[in-house]
Amino acid sequence: MYISKRGQRLLEHQQPLVRAHFLCAQNPWSPENPDGYINLGTAENHLVFDLLEPRLNASPGIQEHHTHYAELHGMEAFRELLSGYLSEMTGVLVSAGELAVASGSSSIIDMLVYALCEPGDGIIIPAPYYAGFDHDLKTRVQVEPVPAFTSPENGHKLTLEVLQQALLQAGRRTIKVRGILITNPNNPLGRVYDRKTLEMIVAFAREHKLQLISDELYAKSVFGDRYISLAGMSEEAGIDYHIVYGFAKDFGLSGFKTGMLFTRQEKLLKAVQELAYFMPVSNATQKILSNLLAGKAWLNHFFEENSKRLAQASGVCHQVLSEKGIHAEPNNAGFFAWLDLSRYLSSASAEAEMELYQHILENAKVNISPGQVFHGAEPGWFRLCYARPEQMIRESVSRISASLEHIQIPEKT
Amino acid sequence: MYISKRGQRLLEHQQPLVRAHFLCAQNPWSPENPDGYINLGTAENHLVFDLLEPRLNASPGIQEHHTHYAELHGMEAFRELLSGYLSEMTGVLVSAGELAVASGSSSIIDMLVYALCEPGDGIIIPAPYYAGFDHDLKTRVQVEPVPAFTSPENGHKLTLEVLQQALLQAGRRTIKVRGILITNPNNPLGRVYDRKTLEMIVAFAREHKLQLISDELYAKSVFGDRYISLAGMSEEAGIDYHIVYGFAKDFGLSGFKTGMLFTRQEKLLKAVQELAYFMPVSNATQKILSNLLAGKAWLNHFFEENSKRLAQASGVCHQVLSEKGIHAEPNNAGFFAWLDLSRYLSSASAEAEMELYQHILENAKVNISPGQVFHGAEPGWFRLCYARPEQMIRESVSRISASLEHIQIPEKT
Repeated sequence: MYISKRGQRLLEHQQPLVRAHFLCAQNPWSPENPDGYINLGTAENHLVFDLLEPRLNASPGIQEHHTHYAELHGMEAFRELLSGYLSEMTGVLVSAGELAVASGSSSIIDMLVYALCEPGDGIIIPAPYYAGFDHDLKTRVQVEPVPAFTSPENGHKLTLEVLQQALLQAGRRTIKVRGILITNPNNPLGRVYDRKTLEMIVAFAREHKLQLISDELYAKSVFGDRYISLAGMSEEAGIDYHIVYGFAKDFGLSGFKTGMLFTRQEKLLKAVQELAYFMPVSNATQKILSNLLAGKAWLNHFFEENSKRLAQASGVCHQVLSEKGIHAEPNNAGFFAWLDLSRYLSSASAEAEMELYQHILENAKVNISPGQVFHGAEPGWFRLCYARPEQMIRESVSRISASLEHIQIPEKT
Repeated sequence: MYISKRGQRLLEHQQPLVRAHFLCAQNPWSPENPDGYINLGTAENHLVFDLLEPRLNASPGIQEHHTHYAELHGMEAFRELLSGYLSEMTGVLVSAGELAVASGSSSIIDMLVYALCEPGDGIIIPAPYYAGFDHDLKTRVQVEPVPAFTSPENGHKLTLEVLQQALLQAGRRTIKVRGILITNPNNPLGRVYDRKTLEMIVAFAREHKLQLISDELYAKSVFGDRYISLAGMSEEAGIDYHIVYGFAKDFGLSGFKTGMLFTRQEKLLKAVQELAYFMPVSNATQKILSNLLAGKAWLNHFFEENSKRLAQASGVCHQVLSEKGIHAEPNNAGFFAWLDLSRYLSSASAEAEMELYQHILENAKVNISPGQVFHGAEPGWFRLCYARPEQMIRESVSRISASLEHIQIPEKT
């Protein structure tokens, strides 16, 4: 049968990380299945279900109006609760009329970029960055991610030079850059941006008339430092900014596929709300999430406990990595350890990195993610997601370390 | 700020029916608010919440794996339940691997047409048709709906000539037609297609190598006749077909935004599944809907009762219309009476129809939908949704009738 050209393009699409995720799901490790696979490649929080469970499984309190049509960019009552939540989170006053809700943060990015960019335009993204952005930008909206490569040599710090270099690169590829997309706290680096760096980003955006998009999905998953939203300082500087948030990370509810956009730009919001028609969240899910948000005391306890558990998991992870002589970047947020395994590469190449990835997946039966999918500047770095029970982290690092012992480390040339 | 050209296009967009829906929602009629608006313009079933409520508000039984990522085109367990349900509904054997679930039937149409058509291609749709199809086809995927106009003179019967005429029209507009989209049972006509007509459609599709899309959202909302799925006879004829279904109509759950595609075409399904990444349904909602599907005895009772109530509402509606001298087409399915008010038009034009629509909305405070949004072939027809309590139907028809009394009927020329 006839498939359109754009439909054919989808068939060529590869998502190696997603495939590994489901491979692991078929034979998962547990204390009872010690030979199973351990998936530390997916950015999910596996430490909080016991806290959520009583609330999720109470009667949802669905009323008749929930079964009928409501605004497709989010029910008024839900957006009211979200606006209170986001006001507290970002430190600026957010109103329900400045929000669009949709079925996941990827959907939000897809719609936002649709409205900000013509096909072929570009968005600068500090790298290493969340692998899904390539998919979100390219698949339907056909916008070019322009990586701004930070370097391991100075601890992956985002500098003005790095952003300028990206803009220059885009110019050479004749890509019109419309904005900058940051993830704060950062995935895969597992840490917040400091105030000075954020101010630099804002100044750069103002100088080059770029829209600022800040993905703040991990805002509440912070333990060693303080997260600062881009909202406040963008407002002070008088530039346009757009905050992406969702329930996947901070609430441990990636399966509930609920994301949102906060923007003060009315026209942009209107355009996104029109597209949200095709990406709505079920009122049933909105009601269940409302039940979480409405319990203020519970919510505070949940986030406190979440931070504690993440700090504990991160601590154990970094300690055992260090015992095994594996370097990881310092971190203070998110679910990630960013590991340097470059000395185990047969050559300084993306191919050698994939070989090492396969080696670890097959020999250690642990799925961690090769840095190339995040556009790491140098090969040999890996992302490990540690928001898992302690025993699983210890087991994984042991296995990874054991699998590396067999590798002959090439002489430095 | 800069909004992309495609973003701008969204801002120009008008959805008059949706606007009236929310106007009515602000001041809704009830026995306690007798001066409020009555909305009979939205295709929703308001007769079944009492049946659903105990099941919807039981503990949903969410397990840890539901809170994490699952396949974004629908959880395996949910698609298993759906395959059983659809097998029974359509009469052909459906497997879970032939389904894609997404956030509403509009999303399914959007993705399906994306994969079937290049921008600018066309899809023939027998008219009058569901007004949302224009939006679904044009907004993101930029495909042209090609109406095949049925005529009031022969009771809006779909004939071979009507389809041939549409194909001819498309040719004149240099539109490449890729498929035919039918809604069976039909919206807004409120009736099933008979076997002979379906066979004619299948033969026409085969002759012209067109894909067959059958939107069967009202399959279980039938009371006077038998619904026949297009699936079986398409298979016998050996042609490609694609069935769209969802929970909005038959389950009275338009607010739960859950639709699905059943197709045997692997490549097409793969393309749709890729796009479903941006339009997933929350696992929480999938679990609640699974709880409905899993209760076989409950489900049978629900549909039996639903048919009974729809038949009753339809009967009352047609009886009072007839008492007031208003002609409606005979019906046997769905939530719709298709009314002929053409004799109250000041002229045989779309403008006059809109005048009458506004007249009724303002004077009777009843929202019914003007035929032009469904591409009715002749002005003066209206769709009235009667899946409402009896008192509301009686009140509405009285008010409409009273508002029409003041209109001077122009002499026939």
